Order: sequence, then C-alpha cells, then structure tokens
Amino acid sequence: MSVSRRGFLTGAAGVGGVAVGAGAARVLAGNDDGETRTAATPPPSDVVSFYGDHQAGIATPAQERMVFASFDVTTTARADLVELLKSWTEAGAHLVKGSPVGAVAGHPMAPPVDTGEAEGLAAANLTLTVGFGPSLFDRRFGLEQRRPAALRELPALPGDELDPDRSGGDLCVQACADDAQVAFHAVRNLLRLGRGSVVMRWCQLGFGRTSTTSRSQSTPRNLMGFKDGTNNIRAEDTADLSGFVWVGQGSEPAWMRGGTYLVARRIRMLIESWDRDRLEDQEAVFGRQKVGGGPLTGTNEHDKVDLAAKGPDGMPVIATNAHIRLAAPSENGGRKILRRGYSFTDGMDPLTGQLDAGLFFVSFQNDPETFVRLQRRLGASDALNEYIKHVGSAVFACPPGVRPGGWWGQGLFG
Amino acid sequence: MSVSRRGFLTGAAGVGGVAVGAGAARVLAGNDDGETRTAATPPPSDVVSFYGDHQAGIATPAQERMVFASFDVTTTARADLVELLKSWTEAGAHLVKGSPVGAVAGHPMAPPVDTGEAEGLAAANLTLTVGFGPSLFDRRFGLEQRRPAALRELPALPGDELDPDRSGGDLCVQACADDAQVAFHAVRNLLRLGRGSVVMRWCQLGFGRTSTTSRSQSTPRNLMGFKDGTNNIRAEDTADLSGFVWVGQGSEPAWMRGGTYLVARRIRMLIESWDRDRLEDQEAVFGRQKVGGGPLTGTNEHDKVDLAAKGPDGMPVIATNAHIRLAAPSENGGRKILRRGYSFTDGMDPLTGQLDAGLFFVSFQNDPETFVRLQRRLGASDALNEYIKHVGSAVFACPPGVRPGGWWGQGLFG
Ligand code: HEM
Ligand code: HEM
Repeated sequence: MSVSRRGFLTGAAGVGGVAVGAGAARVLAGNDDGETRTAATPPPSDVVSFYGDHQAGIATPAQERMVFASFDVTTTARADLVELLKSWTEAGAHLVKGSPVGAVAGHPMAPPVDTGEAEGLAAANLTLTVGFGPSLFDRRFGLEQRRPAALRELPALPGDELDPDRSGGDLCVQACADDAQVAFHAVRNLLRLGRGSVVMRWCQLGFGRTSTTSRSQSTPRNLMGFKDGTNNIRAEDTADLSGFVWVGQGSEPAWMRGGTYLVARRIRMLIESWDRDRLEDQEAVFGRQKVGGGPLTGTNEHDKVDLAAKGPDGMPVIATNAHIRLAAPSENGGRKILRRGYSFTDGMDPLTGQLDAGLFFVSFQNDPETFVRLQRRLGASDALNEYIKHVGSAVFACPPGVRPGGWWGQGLFG
Repeated sequence: MSVSRRGFLTGAAGVGGVAVGAGAARVLAGNDDGETRTAATPPPSDVVSFYGDHQAGIATPAQERMVFASFDVTTTARADLVELLKSWTEAGAHLVKGSPVGAVAGHPMAPPVDTGEAEGLAAANLTLTVGFGPSLFDRRFGLEQRRPAALRELPALPGDELDPDRSGGDLCVQACADDAQVAFHAVRNLLRLGRGSVVMRWCQLGFGRTSTTSRSQSTPRNLMGFKDGTNNIRAEDTADLSGFVWVGQGSEPAWMRGGTYLVARRIRMLIESWDRDRLEDQEAVFGRQKVGGGPLTGTNEHDKVDLAAKGPDGMPVIATNAHIRLAAPSENGGRKILRRGYSFTDGMDPLTGQLDAGLFFVSFQNDPETFVRLQRRLGASDALNEYIKHVGSAVFACPPGVRPGGWWGQGLFG
C-alpha cells in the first residue's frame, strides 16, 4: 500500500493549481475490498466537479451526509478576507477530489498541513458551497454598497423561537458528502486555514438527507417517517432552476448572476408528541400518505396533488391547513424553492430529557423573499406547527461557480 | 412499488416471534438503482444475525456509524423491567433484519407502532448490544445479590474531567449500522417502547468507526489523523476473544458466561492544539507513523512493534511515554481489550468556540479492571494526555447472546 505523500503539493502552482492526477492516484481504502487505484486508473466516479457556472452542492444530487458551518470574520483587513477566500478555493479544489489540502506528512519539524483523517477515504461526492451573510456587507470591508438588495437578515417570522447562537454568520460553508468523515474533514481543514481570520459561529451535522434533488434518487424520509422531497425542484428541471433558483443574467448585482440565496433553518421536531399522534392525523398534517408518499387525493407518490378535491362530507380532502397545500406553488403565486435539508440529532436536550432532533432545513432560491413569504404563511397556519419549533435561522448569498484560476467571491471583491 | 405494510405484525406470535421472510420482503429503496427485493430473493447480505452465543456488535466487523444510548430506569416494578427487556428483544430481532418494530401504517385511529423513518432503507448491518449498569443492581429490582463482582462504577482515574450528565446509566443500547438513520431509528423506537419504564440519560452519535475488528477491514483513522485499531483484537482472533473478551464458562455469575463488560469513555480531543503540533511530535506521541501507520521501529502498518529498540542516541525509539508502549499488552501483564470506538463531533463548544470533537472510546473485556489498570497508567503518563480530556464514562455488563425464544437478560431475571 503506497500512501506516503511526503512533499505532496510542495510544487503546487498557487491559487487554483489543479494538481491533476492527485485524486486518481489516491488510495481508496474506504471500501473493504482493499481495492487500490493508481494513477493509471480513470478518475473515480464519486468526484463532483469543483468548477462550473454554479457552485456544486445545490443542484447536485443530494449526498447522504452534511456538515454545515457558519463563521464570523474576525479580521478587519479586507486583504485577509480575500486571502482566506483564495486559500479556501484552492483547498476546496483538492478536497473534492479526495486529496488533502496539503502534506499529511511533510517536514517532521512542521505541523502537517492537512489534518489527515480523510487519508484513504474516497472522495465520496464531496461538495463545498460557500455563502456570504448580510453581516459581511459592512464597513469593515468596504462592502456597504455591494450588498445585494435581496440579502437582508430574515425578518421575525410567526412561531420563531430562535437561538442567536445557532443563527446568522458572516460566511458559511455547506459540506455535503456520502461519508460524514469526509465532510467533517473538509470543514475542519477550512476552519484551520481560516485561523486568525474567522472563528466558527455554529456548526450543524446532518446524518441523513431529507430531499431528492435528482430524478435518479429515491425519495428519503424525514424523522417524522414521511417521504420528503417528492415535489422538489430537481437537477433535471432546468426551467425551474433558471426560473427559481439561479440569479438571472439580467439581475443585480452582476456578481451574483448564476448564484443563489441559501436559507438555513434548524427545525426541532417534537418527536415524542408526534409519535403519539394517530396515523390519520399525521397524514392530514402533510396531506400525504405516510408509507407510500402519495397525496391523500391519489395513490402513488408522484400522483398529481388535487387541492380542489372534496370528500363525501364536502370538506377538502387535503385540509386547508395541510403542509403541502400551504406550501404548494399554486397557492404561492407560482413561486418555488429548491429544498436540500438533512435530518439531525444532537443527542438529548438536557432541559426536557427529550431527543434534540429534527430537520436542518436548507433551501435555495433566487430571492430569499420567496422563503419569507412561504414561511410567514406556514408559520401562521401550518398543521405541522404543533410538532415543530424553528430554533435556528440564517441566510447567505452564494456567489456563482468558480472557474479554474478563479476564486470564491472574486466577483464581489475582485 | 409495494411498500404498504398495513397490519404487518398484527399476527406476530409474542416474544421472540421471528416473522420469517419479513426482512427479505422489505423493499430496499436505499440504493439509487431502485432495486426491489421480494420474498423470493435470498436474504440480503447486510443482515447481522440477532441470535448467537454472544451479542452482536462486539466481535462483529465494526460498522460505519453508531448511536449509543444510556437509560435510567424509572419504573420500580421488576415486572415492568422484564416486560421492557422482552419487548426490546422482540423489536431488536425485527430491526436488525431491516423490518419495522410494528406497523408503520396500521389503524388510522391509532399512532403507528414504528416511527417509519427507516422504511425503504436497507438493514445496513445493524447490531444492537444491550448492557446493564452497576446502578441497576439495587433494591428496586431485588438485584443486590446478583451484581457481578466485576461490575462496579469505575473508580476516579487520573486526569478524569467527567460530566455526570454524560456518564453512567442503568441500561445501555449500542446501535451500530452502516447507515446513521438506521441506527437512530432503532434507538428511537426502543426508547419509545420503553416509555413509562425508562428515560434516556445521555446519547452519543458516532460518525466514523475508529477501530478494526475484522481482518477483512482496512484500518480507519481517528480525528488525529492516525490509523486506529491496528493492534486490536479481531473477530478472527478466537483465542484472544475467549481469553480476554468473553466471560469464561467457569466464571461467576453464571448468567454472564458468554457475555462481556463494556466501557465507554467520551474523550474530547483538543484538536486545535494537536493541529499545531509538529509531525515528529505527533508521531512520537503514538509511537507510530502518521500516514502509513507502521511503528516507529518499522515500515509497514502491521510490522511488529519493537519496544526495546534504541536510537543512535541510546534513547528508546518508541518513547517511554508513547501511547502504544504504555498500552501494549506486553507492558500490562499480557492483558488485552477489544476496542470498538467511533469519532464524534457535537458541533461547537459554546464556552471555548472550539470544535467539540473526539473519540467515543468503547472497549469490551471480560473484566473492567483490565481497562481500569490500563487507563490508570495512560491517564498518569501518556504523552497523548496533552491533547485529550476524558469527559464521559460508563461501564455496563453485556449479557451473552439471545437464543430464539429467549430475551436480553433472561439469565439475570429469569
Ligand atoms: C420540520 C419541518 C418540515 C417538514 C417535516 C416538512 C416535510 C414535508 C413533506 C413530508 C412534504 C411532502 C413531500 C414533498 O413534496 O417533499 C413537504 C413538502 C413541501 N415543503 Fe415541507 N417540511 C418542513 C418544513 C418546510 C418549510 C420551513 C418550508 C418552506 C418555508 C417547506 C416547504 C415545502 C414545500 C414547498 C413543499 C412542496 C409542496 C408541494 O408543492 O407539494 N417545508 N414538506
Ligand atoms: C482519544 C484517545 C485515544 C486515541 C486517539 C487513541 C489512539 C490510538 C492509536 C492511534 C493507536 C495505535 C494503533 C492501534 O494499534 O490501534 C492506539 C493503540 C492502542 N490504544 Fe489507544 N487511543 C486513545 C485512547 C485509548 C484508551 C483510553 C485506551 C485504553 C485505556 C487505549 C488503548 C489502546 C491499546 C490497548 C492500543 C494497542 C497498543 C498495542 O498493543 O500496540 N487507547 N490508540
């Protein structure tokens, strides 16, 4: 087994240096078959391209695990912030290929550049998605005039019980991968590269995806046991992506074109009381069947939802306060969002003795206002409210994708 | 897709009822290929047998993820506790096959028996391992005379900084699986079955294994970037298993024969200061090479460790305070333990602003005293102590395996 990478990257050519072949030469010991790939083997199929018009991790088929980190910038020097984003970009390009951010074992008298715990693991479809919070656009960095009009802290929303320590942030990194250790390794190493410029504000681990963002994926279940992501925008829905997710070519500011806005909400589920609810009620809350996922007006998961249908009693089959009615595009001026959330549990809540578990909701849209309107409505009337609590919240502007030689935020700072 | 299980299990024949075929009939939608298994297909290869001489989850090849739960018993009726263990056994036999603990969608007017979030997921090699804490053996249940002499709360150990809210417990369930949602689902449903008899005391998620317990597995890395589990007892080492792990046939009490003792330690890593340490020091701390995992006295991972070797300066190559020297069986009267830990991170520590991450150490041994002696020594002298902090601790007696028709703890209560 050839795993030594002594001196690896010493010759890497600055920002955006792609170190072609490093990923392919990686020893993939994550599989138990002991299979070893060499530079001669074609690149592994579990690498998501780092470069493109849009950042990866948005329309990318949702991976199994997530580590989401929010950072506060501590430096007040714009040049440091630019350096940080450049170094994150360079590191990111390596990480997504399954390569370390630098030598795992370089000079004996120096701390290793990469922390090493992902050595031998596959690339696992790692994606890194970076966003800028509204608080970044202030005098510290001379960005007051550059804040997109659409990017504001979310207003207070009905039912909010937000914990400020799990909300907000100047910068975010969403790391998604099919292996939690790969996602953790990425965030940890970016945090480390940022030492002196950023501190972590909060961090959330997601252990199972709750959305489908590609037609090639089966629909996963959230912790309420329901299929989640049935009526989501998919990678294949290019018209929806350009209509509702990507900031359009005519939109302002120019540096956000091809980008999108990320809304994150830590939604705690009151699973003990949910678990006591009878099946009929649970299905009425969503307007869908629990096992199959079909609408209450149909049979199969992907049957069209008929919001007009009435039962024998003359009442709507899908209740007026059902989640899928209130959230449906047809009830919201046709507007859509792309959901890409993960189930979480952070063990036990010491105050209540109950599981601190739920949905780390993440949505992407070309205007955060779409989320705000939707949540204003859901927060006021959704039958689901009895069983959930929004406890964390953040919004970030995700710039467009990076091109080889470019860097995250180049359009904003460049 | 046929996923409805209405009425499933309604006819299950009481405790230990095996419902043969239910696992095989499960629709495995976890793979993206949409593959559907029917009752005609052979049972999936990702099912670990529930029954046997020993509990699964000990010598079983370590799965990727873990959810570990510690419970306090709230009922004072021995009969309730027996009922609980019987119902956990019945549920466990279903869960490990990838089956729900009861109807996911049964009667519309009743709460579903199973919470449903694992519907459509594979069995994922789920194992459930149950243990009894020293505090269980008290007057409440008339067990004062039945406590194994070996089972006592661990004594204070050098360097301990234990949080009582993450320590101890009357009962534990270790759920390991290759899918975190499968492990979570199992613990959540056992907790639910236990409502009224137990409350959760603490709970720990592990996101990546840090041990190898089978020669078919490659050695994983812990969050310090080192291979962990190289010199571990493996499933194939039957002499070590019977000598050091399983309670022997001549030992007391009789109900523990074929069982073992589980020690759990939540060990926080001070990863920020570790990351600043130079490679040479990091390797000296363990006595092993970081990338390849070989001992400092050798080249390849599995080269024999030479504790007697001296360098040109006459000093031992593997330092006197190196982790693998202090922990080596040869330095500890030949005694061994089976390690089966997981990496964890619980986000950010709000007090320090640093990542709350580390190793959830789990070891199995036929006498907890083996752990105590080892840790007394490590806690006093290990070079690693500069970078770790033991913050949680528990010990449990794991009874032997269950036979069809039997139940967890039958030997103790029966
Ligand atoms: C814990 C909280 C939530 C849970 C458990 C949940 C669960 C679900 C489920 C099971 C569905 C039906 C299947 C599907 O189409 O995906 C659904 C649909 C949907 N949800 Fe949520 N959701 C939650 C919060 C939210 C929030 C906060 C929003 C936005 C503000 C939202 C927006 C939507 C939308 C747009 C749909 C699709 C409606 C349609 O067109 O049929 N959800 N959700
Ligand atoms: C965060 C804490 C710990 C870390 C990071 C750690 C890491 C390691 C590493 C990297 C090795 C060498 C590879 C191997 O043989 O597995 C090792 C070996 C070992 N560790 Fe630990 N360990 C920790 C705590 C403990 C504790 C608490 C114990 C027991 C009290 C322990 C017992 C052992 C033993 C018995 C060996 C094998 C020594 C040999 O025979 O070569 N470790 N550990």
